[in-house]
Amino acid sequence: MQRTSLTRAIALGATTAALLFATHAQAQDTYEWKLVTSWPKNFPGVGQGPERLAQLVEEMSDGRLTIEVFGAGQLVPGFEVFDAVSEGTAQIGHSASYYWKGKAPAAQFFAAVPFGMNAQEMNAWLHYGGGLELWNELYDEFGVEVMAAGASGVQMGGWYNREINSVADLEGLKMRMPGLGGEVMSQMGVAIVNMPGGEIFTSLQSGAIDATEWIGPYNDLAFGLHQAAEYYYYPGWHEPTVMFEAIVNDEAWGELPADLQAILRSAIRDVNQDVLDEYTARNNDALATLINEHEVQLRPLPDDVLAEAKRISAEVVQELADSSELAGRIYESYSDFQQKVTNYHAISEQAYYNARNPDGEVSFDNAAE
Amino acid sequence: MQRTSLTRAIALGATTAALLFATHAQAQDTYEWKLVTSWPKNFPGVGQGPERLAQLVEEMSDGRLTIEVFGAGQLVPGFEVFDAVSEGTAQIGHSASYYWKGKAPAAQFFAAVPFGMNAQEMNAWLHYGGGLELWNELYDEFGVEVMAAGASGVQMGGWYNREINSVADLEGLKMRMPGLGGEVMSQMGVAIVNMPGGEIFTSLQSGAIDATEWIGPYNDLAFGLHQAAEYYYYPGWHEPTVMFEAIVNDEAWGELPADLQAILRSAIRDVNQDVLDEYTARNNDALATLINEHEVQLRPLPDDVLAEAKRISAEVVQELADSSELAGRIYESYSDFQQKVTNYHAISEQAYYNARNPDGEVSFDNAAE
Repeated sequence: MQRTSLTRAIALGATTAALLFATHAQAQDTYEWKLVTSWPKNFPGVGQGPERLAQLVEEMSDGRLTIEVFGAGQLVPGFEVFDAVSEGTAQIGHSASYYWKGKAPAAQFFAAVPFGMNAQEMNAWLHYGGGLELWNELYDEFGVEVMAAGASGVQMGGWYNREINSVADLEGLKMRMPGLGGEVMSQMGVAIVNMPGGEIFTSLQSGAIDATEWIGPYNDLAFGLHQAAEYYYYPGWHEPTVMFEAIVNDEAWGELPADLQAILRSAIRDVNQDVLDEYTARNNDALATLINEHEVQLRPLPDDVLAEAKRISAEVVQELADSSELAGRIYESYSDFQQKVTNYHAISEQAYYNARNPDGEVSFDNAAE
Repeated sequence: MQRTSLTRAIALGATTAALLFATHAQAQDTYEWKLVTSWPKNFPGVGQGPERLAQLVEEMSDGRLTIEVFGAGQLVPGFEVFDAVSEGTAQIGHSASYYWKGKAPAAQFFAAVPFGMNAQEMNAWLHYGGGLELWNELYDEFGVEVMAAGASGVQMGGWYNREINSVADLEGLKMRMPGLGGEVMSQMGVAIVNMPGGEIFTSLQSGAIDATEWIGPYNDLAFGLHQAAEYYYYPGWHEPTVMFEAIVNDEAWGELPADLQAILRSAIRDVNQDVLDEYTARNNDALATLINEHEVQLRPLPDDVLAEAKRISAEVVQELADSSELAGRIYESYSDFQQKVTNYHAISEQAYYNARNPDGEVSFDNAAE
């Protein structure tokens, strides 16, 4: 009897342990991921997105998934983020899709389209208009899963060292403006100069370029661009938002148990809104500082510049649509959604802004504070 | 030897089991929560928010936290959600803070303010402007934790059974419009009638009321309001967004381990954006259907109505600010942020909308499709 009892005890202990192991085998696995970005480590605004993502995922997974964030150049250069994730050098990346236009021109639809959709509209298209599925279809051949991971909001039109009063004033101007916006400006007589972010300030100050676009007040102030040019133009028709992306290596994604996949997905969605929230809040204060303390001259782009840019933008975007069968389908989905949301926003967001502030007045009380 | 070996085996089995229990004692605990809402079960748009929340939390927690969603009236009436969560009848609720103005008038600042902030601006204020801290301070005495959990976007101005061409046309009109907007309309000569959502359609059709506001095209179409009134006015100056809320019983929140708290927080933030994304997408199609299929007459509110509503709104909001010390601090934070973001959005979002669609044109091609 005693011996049987002992045997039973052993068996029970072993079974309990085995059951616990079985139940928690998956839960026990930990994952240490590397995240590469196209931004300098701890860059204001967009650079905070990946830091927040790493923190959220670690908290939610109770340390089962940890993510180490590398700034541009720390593990791979900023423009090699896509390759690094595609090849598995890093499991995850944070960047913007227009950097990969050399691999897939249609990627530009998911970052910024001149006279295209703003942040609220892009998020609606991506999550309820079929956009995200098309984005994933585009990246599929590269072995990469993609999700929206932050937005800048409508950007600024750029810094100029002289006043622009008509399209004629753009002729011969040397400007740094990458992407589709640069193509449009080039057709308006501007000499487009490409250079990395780190060279912009010196080039503008030395007169090697006459104008540049960057992001918006928060990043532009931190970059010191107000010390190199006096005129600050709006709105950023070339970038109604930049949509940032989180890209995940397919194989690494597939190895995660379902709960960690769900955690990662929601953490990215959290960051997606958080980056826009931060920009929306910080741009206000930065704009006030630029105007009140640094006496920056704020100017609207002339109507004829906007009208001409809009006309040429439609042609440039159509050319992009013609670049491949998939690009054509993306364009169709994008432009169909944009037409509908433009209608609805004409009577909601746009009409409301114009009812609240009929003249689009910007009133900084220089005397106060 | 054999006996020692057996004893060791028992001990080993027991120790292993004990260790596993110790490590996962917390992880083993499961939580079954009830979520009460102010919306009918599976209501389009806002009613999808709590359903998504429950699903996300279950996936992310691998079933350790499950949430059962109750529609209005299933566990408690829609207007008793706050009490139910405060008293612990339910652990969590999904609602809108203006319903609790009887308990704390300042709660209205966190749902909708006439001529106040839209969804993008509210999110920036809540998450990067101190708004969320003030909201929690307001709810603190009720033992409730609060987070933003969805936005409607700018709503519509309402359905009218006659044309409104000036402030004079509002005189004597019987209208259903709750909250601060109703107070403003009342000062403009409108007879404000309060009634539950379920009575609106019949009252409007029978002529018991002449006008009503509801939400926006997506919900209004589902409600059939186009069958009861012909004129559809914009924009919804009285509700530049409604911000929805997730409220959590403090004690229930405190019982969750840190990882489940983090999971719940990010799931709510995910839902916060998702509800707005869905509204932004679905309102487009619904508006097209209302105009193309149901021949609804879309009309802008006259300039003098908007100007007068704006003037009175400032007074009504100021009265709310004077209702308590905390209301005063909330107002100060809210209006300070609004002034700054209005400046920045004048040159970004607003300027961009106006550059993209200079006349605010709404063009539905009735011939096509």
